[in-house]
Amino acid sequence: MIVYGKNVAKEVLKSGKNVEKIILKDSFDDKEVFSLMKNRNLPVEKLTKKEFSKFDKYPHQGIILYVEDFKYTDLLSLIENESSLLIILDHLEDPHNLGAIIRTCEAAGVDGIIIPKDRSVEVNSTVMKTSAGAIENVRIAQVVNLGQTIKKLKENGYWIVGTDMENSTDYCKIDYSGKIALVIGSEGFGMSSLVKKNCDFIARIPMYGKINSLNASVAAGIMIYEVVRQRNNK
Amino acid sequence: MIVYGKNVAKEVLKSGKNVEKIILKDSFDDKEVFSLMKNRNLPVEKLTKKEFSKFDKYPHQGIILYVEDFKYTDLLSLIENESSLLIILDHLEDPHNLGAIIRTCEAAGVDGIIIPKDRSVEVNSTVMKTSAGAIENVRIAQVVNLGQTIKKLKENGYWIVGTDMENSTDYCKIDYSGKIALVIGSEGFGMSSLVKKNCDFIARIPMYGKINSLNASVAAGIMIYEVVRQRNNK
Repeated sequence: MIVYGKNVAKEVLKSGKNVEKIILKDSFDDKEVFSLMKNRNLPVEKLTKKEFSKFDKYPHQGIILYVEDFKYTDLLSLIENESSLLIILDHLEDPHNLGAIIRTCEAAGVDGIIIPKDRSVEVNSTVMKTSAGAIENVRIAQVVNLGQTIKKLKENGYWIVGTDMENSTDYCKIDYSGKIALVIGSEGFGMSSLVKKNCDFIARIPMYGKINSLNASVAAGIMIYEVVRQRNNK
Repeated sequence: MIVYGKNVAKEVLKSGKNVEKIILKDSFDDKEVFSLMKNRNLPVEKLTKKEFSKFDKYPHQGIILYVEDFKYTDLLSLIENESSLLIILDHLEDPHNLGAIIRTCEAAGVDGIIIPKDRSVEVNSTVMKTSAGAIENVRIAQVVNLGQTIKKLKENGYWIVGTDMENSTDYCKIDYSGKIALVIGSEGFGMSSLVKKNCDFIARIPMYGKINSLNASVAAGIMIYEVVRQRNNK
């Protein structure tokens, strides 16, 4: 997988993640990156501006890294780890949203993210870049079937909290103690009906406008930090 | 202002917003757009592929609309209106963040957004696109000087609440009753020192990871909905 940009490069180089190759534009200059590269003794290729232009579709800042693909976590290991807060992303599509949610999960101390294998964004270079390095500290499981996954989570004592406007409870009035899996619906369609049917609670973020639509990563942030707030108050 | 692309074109044509002119590439073909155009009876210009190529810096999908510029609100009208919650964006740069914050403000019933004129994102076509229509219902003031603006807000009874990690109070422990202006710092640098110095309170969103950075629009969403939560509990 290709990743790009100074911040991502720094996080990757610090993380000890396997780097196959680094490609630099010959004008690239960043002391911190050079010092991190020195510690790792990695294969580096320098290209002229013209040669490097083949990467211009990425906002690369003059640095491209070939890294090992992102290693997904096993669902069972998330469960066995007695995680107290998991986030299920029900067919999100936008890599910027996944990146922003990964940042929020890292900051808030969420134990893991669950995404479906099909018809869903996955961890690609845009996600790595927008996650601003947070991805190295967040565990993500990719599952074949969200319905089965929710069943398994329930068997293991999780309460499933979905988000929707209808037949729902103010998100601040729900008790988030115990083991919780929060479901965030997709950008265009919200939660799928199968997933909604299997939720123990449906949370509603109150809205007072005419359009009343929140960006998926903003909605996730509001929900996640309400869980944090309640747990801090205990 | 120029806007482009099929989805934005559809939204603009549905909205009743003033459209000065539509320019189409002669190969453009979209039934829904044509039907919306018919209802509005607008001046249309068709260009050959070669003539249209001057717009190729935009991802235009063969359609460009000239629409009236976004109408900013006057700061005084926000103040005179006895707004109880204003958001100050301290030199945000990313139009996607501004678009997402506009959506959050519309949903949460925020009374207005204040942005500086210089070194700041402004309402452009990307913002219009990412705000998903919410921009039509949110008032935005563009000001020359944030320091002067904060002074004026204070004279009019506003408490200024900034966001930062240092010398700060847990954001849930601050009392948001009364007239509040929340300051959200820029993506790269947070709040500027001049603005920070003039805040009455500095709020901290607690973080438990290693990277600990939130996307600016997510941080804004968390702060805004804490204000909403407290006010709903009164």
